[in-house]
Order: sequence, then structure tokens, then C-alpha cells
Amino acid sequence: MKAALYEGKQKFSIQSVDPIAPGPDEIRLSVAYVGICGTDTHIYHGAMDARVQPPQVIGHEMSGTVAELGSNVQGFAIGDPVVVRPLDNRAETAADRGHSHICRDLKFIGIDSPGAFQNSWTVPAFAVHKAPHGVDLQLAALSEPLAVACHDVRLGEVQAGELAVVMGGGPIGMLVAIVARATGARVILSEVNENRLAFARELGFEAVSPIDTDLAKLCRERSDGAGADIVFEVSGAKAAAAGMTDVLAIRGRIVLVAIYPQPVELNLFQFFWKELKLCGARVYEPQDYEQALQLISEKSLPLDKMITRVEPLDNIQAAFENLDSSPNAMKVLIDCQA
Amino acid sequence: MKAALYEGKQKFSIQSVDPIAPGPDEIRLSVAYVGICGTDTHIYHGAMDARVQPPQVIGHEMSGTVAELGSNVQGFAIGDPVVVRPLDNRAETAADRGHSHICRDLKFIGIDSPGAFQNSWTVPAFAVHKAPHGVDLQLAALSEPLAVACHDVRLGEVQAGELAVVMGGGPIGMLVAIVARATGARVILSEVNENRLAFARELGFEAVSPIDTDLAKLCRERSDGAGADIVFEVSGAKAAAAGMTDVLAIRGRIVLVAIYPQPVELNLFQFFWKELKLCGARVYEPQDYEQALQLISEKSLPLDKMITRVEPLDNIQAAFENLDSSPNAMKVLIDCQA
Repeated sequence: MKAALYEGKQKFSIQSVDPIAPGPDEIRLSVAYVGICGTDTHIYHGAMDARVQPPQVIGHEMSGTVAELGSNVQGFAIGDPVVVRPLDNRAETAADRGHSHICRDLKFIGIDSPGAFQNSWTVPAFAVHKAPHGVDLQLAALSEPLAVACHDVRLGEVQAGELAVVMGGGPIGMLVAIVARATGARVILSEVNENRLAFARELGFEAVSPIDTDLAKLCRERSDGAGADIVFEVSGAKAAAAGMTDVLAIRGRIVLVAIYPQPVELNLFQFFWKELKLCGARVYEPQDYEQALQLISEKSLPLDKMITRVEPLDNIQAAFENLDSSPNAMKVLIDCQA
Repeated sequence: MKAALYEGKQKFSIQSVDPIAPGPDEIRLSVAYVGICGTDTHIYHGAMDARVQPPQVIGHEMSGTVAELGSNVQGFAIGDPVVVRPLDNRAETAADRGHSHICRDLKFIGIDSPGAFQNSWTVPAFAVHKAPHGVDLQLAALSEPLAVACHDVRLGEVQAGELAVVMGGGPIGMLVAIVARATGARVILSEVNENRLAFARELGFEAVSPIDTDLAKLCRERSDGAGADIVFEVSGAKAAAAGMTDVLAIRGRIVLVAIYPQPVELNLFQFFWKELKLCGARVYEPQDYEQALQLISEKSLPLDKMITRVEPLDNIQAAFENLDSSPNAMKVLIDCQA
């Protein structure tokens, strides 16, 4: 079978490897589609070479079917459509207080251990979620980023009728906007890239650039003067962090999705004055995956539009290179059986 | 009757003035004791001359008794012991979403209108809370700062057995520590002033200086490696804001009580990584006053120790001057009938 190995220095090689027989508590999957995540592009650019071990197969936004079951595994049958929640919490301790998905010694499958850019992937059974039979496996490959969005909207406690601002219109921001709207929120998307703004408008969102629009004023206009109920900060931009407090109503909430490697300035006076709340949100919990799979199977959301293109596994090198030169792409999927 | 008028430029004058007859919806109070708040010292130092209108009576941490009732006022009798919740929300609008205590056009009684450093004070009836008969009126004068602490602990959703860190051991920090402990939390107080540390230890708290103690390590030691459940940031110190994320467990919470006039750097990566929460907390709501009055009447907390000394109204000038030279004082009360 074929596997794409990340070799370091922006280089993948396609190698012929043997499938790995599942251990007693593992499942071997036939991989269908794997999305290229922002983290994969960071790896590709060498930013995580201390963590991955080139040559290594990476990739974790996947869909597939069950190919082979370990001897202890129950509840799955060969051919079942599945997705993987790529979190390995086996090193969890009591000090993690039951928050398995963000336990201190969490290992990320596909980064800290081999990933999905290959024909066949062997993973711990606890990481596998069954998808509904008949699910579109291309859409199912969106379950991981969609579960991120479900987690963010759930932690934000979004209520129907609320005014939500999503700062940042990349794939995760766009999915957060889609899920927040599905939850009943009115969504304004804030993004500086004109192509992403145009895409958001195609999806029916009010989408503005904070460079030429007074976002705080717009939020007041859309809320009888109150301001937004909730901000999802997905951009990672210092200016967004500095300004997110201004757009919010009294007791407004912020869900912090973006990763800020360095400390940034926040307007803590506004937090005090308006009794604002901020909540960090990282990856997902099992119920977020279940919600994502449910939304995918309902087919009521424009998730198909999130798939920019599909490339065969043999073209993975070109797919990563193209992403560098086309930052407007949403999701690029790798077809691991093509 | 006598009133202390703030004249500007660190100067009070004692004047003879006529009591103000209550309007139909007002109550005239005989003022018993009035605490000197940090805000009062800011006013004394001229920091709020744009907001107060010297010569003006200031002061808002008070206790007293009902002296005269407006014609529409019900539910009070002459002589009832009372305290004032000094928030005037009469300019509240729908855009404030029912959060009366922090509505946009909130007026603070005793700052934006005359205050309590006088024999007799006439206030809107809606601001008056009845204290239990027989209450100690010196302790009752602590109801305002104690209500701040009750509000902070309530918004922090403190649970029995949790590990709480209070950063900043001034009067509000000390009261937050007292209320958090009364709610069942184990409290560590972090403060740089040695006299305040000694006072906190007298009250039975574990109290450490973050300069010579690794607070994050101490919190892990006190929590089987997990870290603190909640931080109350009351210090207003940049170093506290920068470090508060380090002491917390996964999904730990921060209640932001301090006023940061300028933006400060926060470690947003930690918010993301540990899914931390931050919640601003400002003043109080009616239920916080009711809890404060209940705690005062129970007499089970060491609130009496919070009263550093009591000075007669005639000595108000010296009392403010002394506070400048004795930063270790907790609460100084002015006896407005002496």
C-alpha cells in the first residue's frame, strides 16, 4: 500500500509500506479522504520538526471505513464508515480533573504518532467514531474541523437570536460562523482578505473588513444599540485581541479559538466595566464529534462549499505547494484511495 | 447639621448645612458610620475632579438609620437601621439588557451626587437596604465593600473545597478572601506588602509574597498537582495579570476585580491551552447586599478586624492624611454623629 511520508524541509515522498495489523484494542481503517489542516502546513514548513519525527506520515482530518478489527474491539463492523477523533489521552491523570481532551500529556494522533495520509491507517479504537451509513465520505472528512466549531459554539453557550461576531474567515472561522448560524445566532464575519469576504457573502453571511468598517458601530446598529452578544476570536491578530472587547454588549462573551504564541495586550478595563467573559476553547470532546457527524448527515449546511478541491494522494506534494500560493482555499482534501 | 465638603486639592472643610427634606421617593438618613474607600482617596487626590463637583460631600460606604420618609416610600420605619447601595440606574435603557448595576449611564451616589460624610443624607429609596434590627452599625458600614466581595465570589461560582488564590491584600482582596473561605474554598492570598501579609496570616490565611514564592508551584502542591481552581485578581499589578494564568488548573477561572486603566499583556496561549475562563466583576447587585448584610448579622466572620480605626467627622481631614502615610490600614470609618 501507499503512504505519503513527510520527510522534512517541505518535502513529501510517496512510499510503498506494509499495512499495520491492529493490536487487540486497535482498528485498521481504509482511509478515504484527509483534509489538509493548518497544523499540517505548519509541519510541512518545518515549524514542528521537534515534535514530529520525519520521515513520518501526518494528517488527521479524515474519513474512511473499517478494514480490520483488533481482537478486543466491539461495536464496529468491517465496512462501517468512520472518522477519527485524533486525541490520545492515555497519559491522563487525576490532576487533569477529567478534562480528557486537554489533559497535560495529551498526544495528538497524526502529529505525535503516524497520521492518515496513506491508504490504510491503524488507530486506537477509542479514537474512532462511527459515521451514519451512507454518509458522504468527502463531507465526513470535515468532521474534525467541524467538531472544533461545534466545541467553540457549545462553550460559547450561543442562544438563538444572539448577535455573534466571528473574527477571522479561514476554514475554522467559516465553520464557526456556519455552526453559530445553525444554532440560531445572527452572524457578522470580520476578515481582511477580500476573497474570503466574498466567499463568506456567498454563504449568506454579513462579512466586513475591520479595516474599513467600524465593527463596534455595526454591532450596535444590529442590536438596538447593545453590541454583540458573543465574539469568536479565530484570527490570532493582535488588533483583533485589542478590539474584541469594544464590539461586545454588557456581559458579552468571548470564545478564544486562536493560538497566540506570545502574550498580547487586552483591554482589561472593558472586561471589568462591562463584566465581559472570556473562555478559551481547544479541540473538541466526544459530543462535539457526534454533533459534527449529525450536522454532516443532515446535509442542511453548506459544508460542501467548504471543499475547495480534492487531490489524489500521489499529488500531495503539489497540493501543499499550491496551498502556499493560494491562501484563499478553504479545505483541500487528499483522496487516499485514488 | 454638619457636613464634610471635599473642596478639591486634598482639602475637606466642615460646614454647617441644612438637612435636605426627602422628595416623595426619597429617604433622609441619619448617618452613623462611613468607611473611606479607595475611590474616596482618589477623589481626595484630585484624580476625579472632572466627575465630582467640589465643593461636594463624598462618601458611600455607610450605615445609618431612617430619619424621615418621603410621601411615597413604604416598607421602612423611622429608626430602622439601613445601608445604601449607592447605584442610581434611573437612566438605564433596553440596550443594558437588564444589567442595571452596570448600565451605561449608571450614576454613582456619593460621586456623581452628594455622599455620606455628613450627619444626615437624603437618598433615593430604591438604594436603601434594611439591615437587621440590632445590627452593629460599625460592621454594617462594611456592607458596601463586603457586597463587592460577595459579588466577586458569586460570579466566580466558588465551590466548597476549591483552591482559590486572591491576588492583592488590600481591603477588597481581604474581604474576597474572607467570603471565599466562608463559601468553603481553601484560600491562598498573594501580596507584596509584609504588613498586609502579616494581617492576612492573623486572619488565618496562607499568605505569600509572589516575589519570593513560586505561586504556581505552591498551588500545585496544594492541589495534588492540578493548580488553583480560581484566581481573584484584585491587585491591578501588571505582573499579576501576566502570571495569573500560570497558577490555574485546567479549566480554571479568573475573576477580574481590579481596574486596569491601560491595556496589559495576558498569556492568551494559556487561556487556549487550558481552556481557562475570565470574568470581569464590577460593584454588586441587590442579592450581594442581602448576602453581605446576612454575613454581617451572623457575626461568624472576622469583619471587626477589618476596621482599623474610627475617627469623628471633625477629623476627616486628618483621617485622609493619615491614610496616605499608613498604607497598611484596612478600613477607617468616620463616625458621622460624633
